[in-house]
Amino acid sequence: MLLIHLDRQSRTPLFRQIFGQLKSMIEENVLRPGDRLPSSRSLSEALGINRTTVTKAYEDLWAMGYTESRSGSYSMVRNRAEIVDEKKADAGKLIEWHKIANSGCGELASTLKSSGFHSQKDGEIDFIPMSPDPRLLPVEDFRKCVNQVLKKNGSSLLQYGDPLGFPPLREYLSHRMRMHGISVFPDEILITSGIQNGVDLVSRMLMAPGSKIVVENPTYSAILPLFQFHRADIVTVDQTEAGMDLDQLESVLSGEPPVLVYTVPNFQNPTGITTSQSHREKLLRLCEKYRVPLLEDGFEEEMKYFGKTVLPIKSMDQHHIVMYLGTFSKVLFPGLRIAWIAADRACIEVLAAIKKAGDLSGNMMNQAALNLFCRYGFYDLQLKRLHKVYRRRMQTALKAARAFIPRNLASFSKPLGGYCLWFELNHFRGDEPEMMDKMKSHGVLVSPGKSFFAASTDRICFRISIAHRDEKEIEEGIKRIGRALA
Amino acid sequence: MLLIHLDRQSRTPLFRQIFGQLKSMIEENVLRPGDRLPSSRSLSEALGINRTTVTKAYEDLWAMGYTESRSGSYSMVRNRAEIVDEKKADAGKLIEWHKIANSGCGELASTLKSSGFHSQKDGEIDFIPMSPDPRLLPVEDFRKCVNQVLKKNGSSLLQYGDPLGFPPLREYLSHRMRMHGISVFPDEILITSGIQNGVDLVSRMLMAPGSKIVVENPTYSAILPLFQFHRADIVTVDQTEAGMDLDQLESVLSGEPPVLVYTVPNFQNPTGITTSQSHREKLLRLCEKYRVPLLEDGFEEEMKYFGKTVLPIKSMDQHHIVMYLGTFSKVLFPGLRIAWIAADRACIEVLAAIKKAGDLSGNMMNQAALNLFCRYGFYDLQLKRLHKVYRRRMQTALKAARAFIPRNLASFSKPLGGYCLWFELNHFRGDEPEMMDKMKSHGVLVSPGKSFFAASTDRICFRISIAHRDEKEIEEGIKRIGRALA
Repeated sequence: MLLIHLDRQSRTPLFRQIFGQLKSMIEENVLRPGDRLPSSRSLSEALGINRTTVTKAYEDLWAMGYTESRSGSYSMVRNRAEIVDEKKADAGKLIEWHKIANSGCGELASTLKSSGFHSQKDGEIDFIPMSPDPRLLPVEDFRKCVNQVLKKNGSSLLQYGDPLGFPPLREYLSHRMRMHGISVFPDEILITSGIQNGVDLVSRMLMAPGSKIVVENPTYSAILPLFQFHRADIVTVDQTEAGMDLDQLESVLSGEPPVLVYTVPNFQNPTGITTSQSHREKLLRLCEKYRVPLLEDGFEEEMKYFGKTVLPIKSMDQHHIVMYLGTFSKVLFPGLRIAWIAADRACIEVLAAIKKAGDLSGNMMNQAALNLFCRYGFYDLQLKRLHKVYRRRMQTALKAARAFIPRNLASFSKPLGGYCLWFELNHFRGDEPEMMDKMKSHGVLVSPGKSFFAASTDRICFRISIAHRDEKEIEEGIKRIGRALA
Repeated sequence: MLLIHLDRQSRTPLFRQIFGQLKSMIEENVLRPGDRLPSSRSLSEALGINRTTVTKAYEDLWAMGYTESRSGSYSMVRNRAEIVDEKKADAGKLIEWHKIANSGCGELASTLKSSGFHSQKDGEIDFIPMSPDPRLLPVEDFRKCVNQVLKKNGSSLLQYGDPLGFPPLREYLSHRMRMHGISVFPDEILITSGIQNGVDLVSRMLMAPGSKIVVENPTYSAILPLFQFHRADIVTVDQTEAGMDLDQLESVLSGEPPVLVYTVPNFQNPTGITTSQSHREKLLRLCEKYRVPLLEDGFEEEMKYFGKTVLPIKSMDQHHIVMYLGTFSKVLFPGLRIAWIAADRACIEVLAAIKKAGDLSGNMMNQAALNLFCRYGFYDLQLKRLHKVYRRRMQTALKAARAFIPRNLASFSKPLGGYCLWFELNHFRGDEPEMMDKMKSHGVLVSPGKSFFAASTDRICFRISIAHRDEKEIEEGIKRIGRALA
């Protein structure tokens, strides 16, 4: 008979006591694989307790995988392989995963390791995060929307869904983009897991090893390891104060044609530059002339605080050569992973097929909740709130930069929206790591400039993002930068 | 002055009336780009209403993109590009997307088109869906979990998260897999968007065009277009009643080595075959001998209804050559898109880097809600419920097949779990489309066999899934199949 001691004074229910003791006996090999537990009837009689108490304990043992029989009256201890000794296993390793992985994988993995979450120390002012301030996110409104869609349609929203994405959300986006002069129908929109996923899909569609692609120099840093992973030949075109240098671009396009030109026309990450309507038109005409697809990253389209409206390149795209990327990550919740591509129907068809081959379906529950959130007007409300806050934060940042960072030390951009400012040092004595150390020792964290350049450069630059910082912190942080550079 | 008529008797609020009428004027070009709206003060005076009412209408017009000024007292109608005439645009198309897309994309796109959602007609019995019966899904319990995590940690769960996936969920999975004899730590687990995403990541890691990979013949059909997209050289090994033919496999492995062997040991999709412990061990030893990574798809690991426990191949994997795929899609919600890969730490590192390059982060809210769901015991409860229901459904299916499908017409598998049965016709006069037509005319939908074969075959087979059908429907459906084949 098994030795089981019940403590009837204990706050632990009797069935948990039985479960716990049997579990220990199995783990400590007192009960061994193949051993039978007593029937629930006999054990309950022996212990003088209700039979259902024993049954409950036995069910939990089964559910946790300790025993085998699922239906009958007997429970048998299961055969579980022993935990492998780590050191032994390493010695006998047959496959060197890093070595057999495709070229490019190793670099990616080390990038991942180095770009881990940085930890902010007490009192430090962190200008790195580029997502909206968590303090400003309407979590509660979103929670209500999730609730509502799950209550109403949970069972169908938790099934596989339309490969293009939740139809009512695509309809909403089609309407919304029309307000920016972009005319696309809902089936010319593909919902993606963030813009990153969109760029990956486009890359999988158009790139082969060695394919030439054109990016601004500097450009959005997270895109570079992805293009490198696709083994693209990344060609850079200088980002001037007006945007991509169009003469340089034309000389690139007139050579061996690239498969893609990637551009960020609004508050470019990292330079903060917004291009003019005429620059956009010229860029589009160039791509049309050379029949090169243009990937327009409109990541912060609706976050313009100053100056007059400039319409997206896609709004002028009568020949359907532009793939437009939009996202909710910079205004709402980055963790939702909902963004979209708007492009020619034939292009969307191929991209959707690649997406489906890679993950079968998106998560409809999230997309339906976001759709409701937008339809209720919460998205517009959120935009208004962010505009109010960030217009002031940006003004504060620009004022502080003028006050605390002497012109002769550094020049900086004057963004019309978005979250980031870009500084270029004029005659800093030292290299980038030294600059970063100085910043850190003055209690301020910035993004080092080199990661935004695809080509090597001697320029010493850095980006600050005001996304997570309030006005007081912005002023103090920029003051510290001024001191660090002095 | 603008002509605005207010109806004070209407249930539509005044600000909505103003908004609606101005919107129409803009859309109908009565108000044109660049036109200024009257100041809110003058309009409110003219209409004899409160100024804030006008302001509210103006704010909505701005939020919807109809006007420009965001701060000042004047609002200007925005310049929106006209809707492009579809036919005109087509005529001037500069890029043929299907042509410039990489080879393999076109095939994918046509697969996507043909595999659209089939529509079930009234009275038809549909044996196609392989996901759990929506009627059995615990949507309400899950809703509560989503609620709880959003209330408690919404703001941080809606940010970017750990590239490996939500740590507590990985911890839970590590514990859960230990119950199946698999010993992996939480950092040897990567959460993926379904098993499909896992297989894609593994392919991106290991495959180059022309890479040899080994699959069972027949095998899980959704995997084939993905491998084809990667331009793999798909080598088939016959699936016998005992599982993959190991002699055939060895002769393949001893030639030019493949980069991967893909196997489904439990209730294989489509054949329903479960391999024995000793077959699993021999398969593992073969892969070890030739140092070939083994991808074990454990998609319905916990859905065994009959017979004794067989442990996963991964449980015997002391040399870390097995990548194990698990998923919640076949027991819980397929639309959640949460699955995982368990493998050697070095392998997971590379896979996580590829995943991060492709989408930056998973959705932590969903993963946290699922984690809570599991920790509360709802997952175990759901498993128990499904076991009870599906054990009986499977028994009913087997009984009906014996009763209504004569042995001389077709042989069929006797699955120990899962959802699917596989039928092979012995001397059917006609081809697969003819068989499918006969089934359809008898009011029953099945999955045609050819899509599961990577190599061409003369065998006439079909799969039925009992996932969405109750016992009565199963009996009636199989009776119809019998009649269709007679």
